[in-house]
Amino acid sequence: MEKKYVIGVDVGGQSAKCGVVDVEGNVVAQEILVSNETTEAAVFIAELADTLKKLIAKAGVEGQIAGIGVGAPNANYYTGNIEFAPNLTWTLAGSKIIPFAKMLSEAMGGLKVTLTNDANAAALGEMKYGVAKLMKIKDFIMITLGTGVGSGIVINGQLLYGHDGFAGELGHTIVVRENGRQCGCGRKGCLEAYCSAIGVARTAKEWLEESEEPSLLRSKSDITSKDVYDAAKDGDALAKRVFDYTGRLLGTQLADFIAFSAPEAIILFGGLARAKEFLTEPIEKAMNDNVLPLWKNKVKILYSTLPASDAAILGASALGWE
Amino acid sequence: MEKKYVIGVDVGGQSAKCGVVDVEGNVVAQEILVSNETTEAAVFIAELADTLKKLIAKAGVEGQIAGIGVGAPNANYYTGNIEFAPNLTWTLAGSKIIPFAKMLSEAMGGLKVTLTNDANAAALGEMKYGVAKLMKIKDFIMITLGTGVGSGIVINGQLLYGHDGFAGELGHTIVVRENGRQCGCGRKGCLEAYCSAIGVARTAKEWLEESEEPSLLRSKSDITSKDVYDAAKDGDALAKRVFDYTGRLLGTQLADFIAFSAPEAIILFGGLARAKEFLTEPIEKAMNDNVLPLWKNKVKILYSTLPASDAAILGASALGWE
Repeated sequence: MEKKYVIGVDVGGQSAKCGVVDVEGNVVAQEILVSNETTEAAVFIAELADTLKKLIAKAGVEGQIAGIGVGAPNANYYTGNIEFAPNLTWTLAGSKIIPFAKMLSEAMGGLKVTLTNDANAAALGEMKYGVAKLMKIKDFIMITLGTGVGSGIVINGQLLYGHDGFAGELGHTIVVRENGRQCGCGRKGCLEAYCSAIGVARTAKEWLEESEEPSLLRSKSDITSKDVYDAAKDGDALAKRVFDYTGRLLGTQLADFIAFSAPEAIILFGGLARAKEFLTEPIEKAMNDNVLPLWKNKVKILYSTLPASDAAILGASALGWE
Repeated sequence: MEKKYVIGVDVGGQSAKCGVVDVEGNVVAQEILVSNETTEAAVFIAELADTLKKLIAKAGVEGQIAGIGVGAPNANYYTGNIEFAPNLTWTLAGSKIIPFAKMLSEAMGGLKVTLTNDANAAALGEMKYGVAKLMKIKDFIMITLGTGVGSGIVINGQLLYGHDGFAGELGHTIVVRENGRQCGCGRKGCLEAYCSAIGVARTAKEWLEESEEPSLLRSKSDITSKDVYDAAKDGDALAKRVFDYTGRLLGTQLADFIAFSAPEAIILFGGLARAKEFLTEPIEKAMNDNVLPLWKNKVKILYSTLPASDAAILGASALGWE
């Protein structure tokens, strides 16, 4: 019998979102599992397998699953391992190298499990079900603007994994060379330190400290990127300038990314991408001001069209078809 | 009859180097043609075809040519055009878009002609005949350090062309964001403005002007990168610091390139790469100081192993086998 469904699992620091997905990209059943209640990878994987089996039964698709795709931080497509993920709590006999694909496959009676990092999964989701599919775009760079900045690079319809499986760490290219901000990776000036949700909140906090300028944000105790977004929507000048600055830095960096892979489009995704009414213009301007003449006004800035609630599952599930 | 030879043509601003190459990468016959004596593309291509036919006859390989590969500035693999090449003198009915592959193929009785830019050709040469072949490296970035800085990006044994055929313009990523040097491309702070032969000479001239430090270079009227190299070999402290600075900038930028495609190696080629005794240490140090921890001390810096006299022909000829 032809297998008509896949399972997508998006593993995050707090929870794992699981879904059964059909060929059209409909999530026909889904479940959320807490991911930080155990420090034992084996315990979590057993719970996950249990959840997936129930989900398959609930959807009535026993025997029809083509494969399981998993998106997870620090996941390696080649090895099927999750390696040294700082935001995941589990170890395997004390080791932070976890053969996740192999363990989950065994727990699922041999179903094929394929792993990649969350940004790559997002890129696959766009290609299989989203705007890249719609517009027939085969060369693009996916930038995920969430707590961090991730990326998935697609070349001629293929995800770029590189020699070791870790290609596409564009959030950790350097955007500010002199006195750059400390980044979580240990280095300074990374794109992620500026153009993530955390980076946006940090810019706002720094600017509020540095001046006396009135701002709606001054009433907040611990500013988040959502606070900055809400303030910008209410017309707050400082908040709007924070997005302008963020967009300009991102656009400047995108110009260099274009010189690498000459993509047809950059696709933006993630919580921060929701602020597109404030980000698009500075991104496009900085990108076109900084790119080589041959690409000026030629590379599209697009936003993910996948429903936010399903996007993570859909992206991961796209791997299940491979 | 099986075709056992290819032709490689390396088109430069002053001359075109042509050669007949066998499957082992031996240049069995070669010829140099002046490329800037005419402003008519049709005239140059007719002369080139004439030269190639004589070369085929001289080598006694009539009917055994599998294809012709051409490396040229601003050449597009997809279209077979040379487009707006600033250093080439010819036009076609006044246009700077020249369908070079098509015209040369017609002049050569229908032999297949494939075009790419010179840095991509160099990468193909390494893959087909050089150090990448020797070490079985399928993921690498070729950086050509000549008058300019070019690059060819190889992913899983395939050259990266991108959506439009112009991928891999890494010489025009920005290495100095604040008060960067003017680059020939019209922008500021490009890698090419610092890490090319011209960039090295410029650094030396700037430093000589800015200080009174004694240097062997002070006796020169118009300093070239070769003068800087010769002075460094003679122990000149300023000249050695110029290479140190150049190497550090290049290494810093390589760290960002690694975050893109996760290559196994960076391969350096070109006139400036001959200064490897002064460049390797600062390149490796800056690269490993700036790269994400997961790639620290893992990416090799290699130098082209192709004989300098044949490298350009060999690189271009590699396309002829496609």
